[in-house]
Amino acid sequence: MASAPRPAGAPAPELVFETLMAHQRSAALRTAIELDLFRAIGEGPGDTASLARQCAASERGIRILCDFLTIAGLVEKEDGRYRHTPTSALFLDPRSPNSIASTARFLGNPAMTEPYMHLAEIVRNGRTVLPGEGTVEPENPVWVEFAHSMAPMMAPMAGPLGAIVLDGLAGAVRVLDIAAGHGLFGIEVAKLSPEAHIVALDWAPVLEVARANACKAGVEGRYDLLPGSAFDAEFGGPYDIVLLTNFLHHFDSRTCVALLKKVHKALKPGGRAAALEFVPNEDRVSPPMAAAFSLTMLVSTPSGDAYTFNDLEKMYREAGFAGMTAHPVPHGPHTVVVGYAK
Amino acid sequence: MASAPRPAGAPAPELVFETLMAHQRSAALRTAIELDLFRAIGEGPGDTASLARQCAASERGIRILCDFLTIAGLVEKEDGRYRHTPTSALFLDPRSPNSIASTARFLGNPAMTEPYMHLAEIVRNGRTVLPGEGTVEPENPVWVEFAHSMAPMMAPMAGPLGAIVLDGLAGAVRVLDIAAGHGLFGIEVAKLSPEAHIVALDWAPVLEVARANACKAGVEGRYDLLPGSAFDAEFGGPYDIVLLTNFLHHFDSRTCVALLKKVHKALKPGGRAAALEFVPNEDRVSPPMAAAFSLTMLVSTPSGDAYTFNDLEKMYREAGFAGMTAHPVPHGPHTVVVGYAK
Repeated sequence: MASAPRPAGAPAPELVFETLMAHQRSAALRTAIELDLFRAIGEGPGDTASLARQCAASERGIRILCDFLTIAGLVEKEDGRYRHTPTSALFLDPRSPNSIASTARFLGNPAMTEPYMHLAEIVRNGRTVLPGEGTVEPENPVWVEFAHSMAPMMAPMAGPLGAIVLDGLAGAVRVLDIAAGHGLFGIEVAKLSPEAHIVALDWAPVLEVARANACKAGVEGRYDLLPGSAFDAEFGGPYDIVLLTNFLHHFDSRTCVALLKKVHKALKPGGRAAALEFVPNEDRVSPPMAAAFSLTMLVSTPSGDAYTFNDLEKMYREAGFAGMTAHPVPHGPHTVVVGYAK
Repeated sequence: MASAPRPAGAPAPELVFETLMAHQRSAALRTAIELDLFRAIGEGPGDTASLARQCAASERGIRILCDFLTIAGLVEKEDGRYRHTPTSALFLDPRSPNSIASTARFLGNPAMTEPYMHLAEIVRNGRTVLPGEGTVEPENPVWVEFAHSMAPMMAPMAGPLGAIVLDGLAGAVRVLDIAAGHGLFGIEVAKLSPEAHIVALDWAPVLEVARANACKAGVEGRYDLLPGSAFDAEFGGPYDIVLLTNFLHHFDSRTCVALLKKVHKALKPGGRAAALEFVPNEDRVSPPMAAAFSLTMLVSTPSGDAYTFNDLEKMYREAGFAGMTAHPVPHGPHTVVVGYAK
């Protein structure tokens, strides 16, 4: 939202102003999703009066909100009518099968956003101000919301992750999906590998979401539930593959190593552990989305982080793994890190 | 914060994610200012341990916060040390005379940010959820905070505004500064025009800030205080110039016209009324900073707006003014709109 052009590298007070006001952008998008505005824009005709009627909202509110979304690049305006951009048509209109609008329910959840009101205290103390262990507190209901609402954002990664972890494997592979959540990653492996058998581990209320998704995908006959905590549950096994998706970043490296040792014990020799992670470069400030994720871990956990590949490789090695490789997922901030049990 | 490159115009789910997380950027900058981090970065040496000590904060918190600020383009990182960008050195280090860090106290004030948690309700109802008239409620203490903390952001505009409103005038001009706030605009006119006499109008506690600034500038002998509301106070006069800075946008056009009529009556024939405003183009979605300001008015007032030049010209004309002209202030989102009393 820059204003008059300046020479490159010149001091820019508008960056300060724009950053202090950036919270408006999150609120505007969250609100548009809540009001079902992107459905109304998709249905047309897109003038303020119609949109206000469709969303049961005021014309003043809808006009100002739609103008703001236009400025933010999320919709287009022409001759006083608002219409979809390619991004909003595909990812924000609830009529699109690729819609990720539901992610606002998790990312914009007051439980996830309210702690930012106390960020100074968090930085002083070096840990979340949420009660107990924050988002990693056992049975935290936020993970049921995550399983429901973040699945559409995770779904496009399931295919690439499945191909990476199955590479060179065939037949009746046994898979443990730790912190399965929505279950999409284990389910994708079951879909790609018709004899694969999946054991999904998560807290019981979360597993209900995974089970429903497994049924929807028609793989429920090869899909077992293991309710409990990754730290306490008996893993069973031995497994060919253990999935650790969006999990290690919640914990300090000592805890990760202990968990990886437990994973190692549950794997067949040569079996593989695959972590889906935000993996910044060693400078920890690039690429931006992966690196910025560390702030979410500061705010919501006692000691989690966005770990670099070196960090993760060291943890894996300490836990007995070898041959670690990093596989960035195309078009997204995630990387799959694979290690092999010796 | 885009990730892997995509073809131009291709749908970009990361825009959705980045927008939903934009509130982190506001929180990070507000927090860095609160912890006096930009002073510490300016003093050096800029490693995490030193910064944590200087800010009385944890190393984990400082490292993650500084990495995040680096990603947001507000500081630089090299060999594990953080240092100023040209922007942070000039505008965020409190040791800089141009620092605008104090603006975070107003823009990041919970009274200004908390209503965004209720933006859906605001859009439904078409008005602020703040009590009474919101930020335009008489004697709202938020304007004392504004007068204190927003002055450094407004100061660079005072020179250009002073030159515009004094153009062609000389001698003992009489100036009424409505909603004077920090007083900087009227004070600048007094500095530029050594015989000018200023009457500053605002609520009494706010005028204390203006008076202190007038003393600092050495113009207190030509600076009178008129405590009260712009709608109720007797303006006196007649004046050569009436200033209406950052004021009209808080009200609906009917209210603005009534006020402009009152202003017209207080002006000498040919006298000028100058409004400092966020003036978007007629499309209401450009330029971005001026146009986006309408959201702030939706959230904080019953019926305010960022008015286009056509809107403002119509109000001025209805109130009896003629010859309206728009003067964009260089390097900022503001425009000075001048009209002449017939």
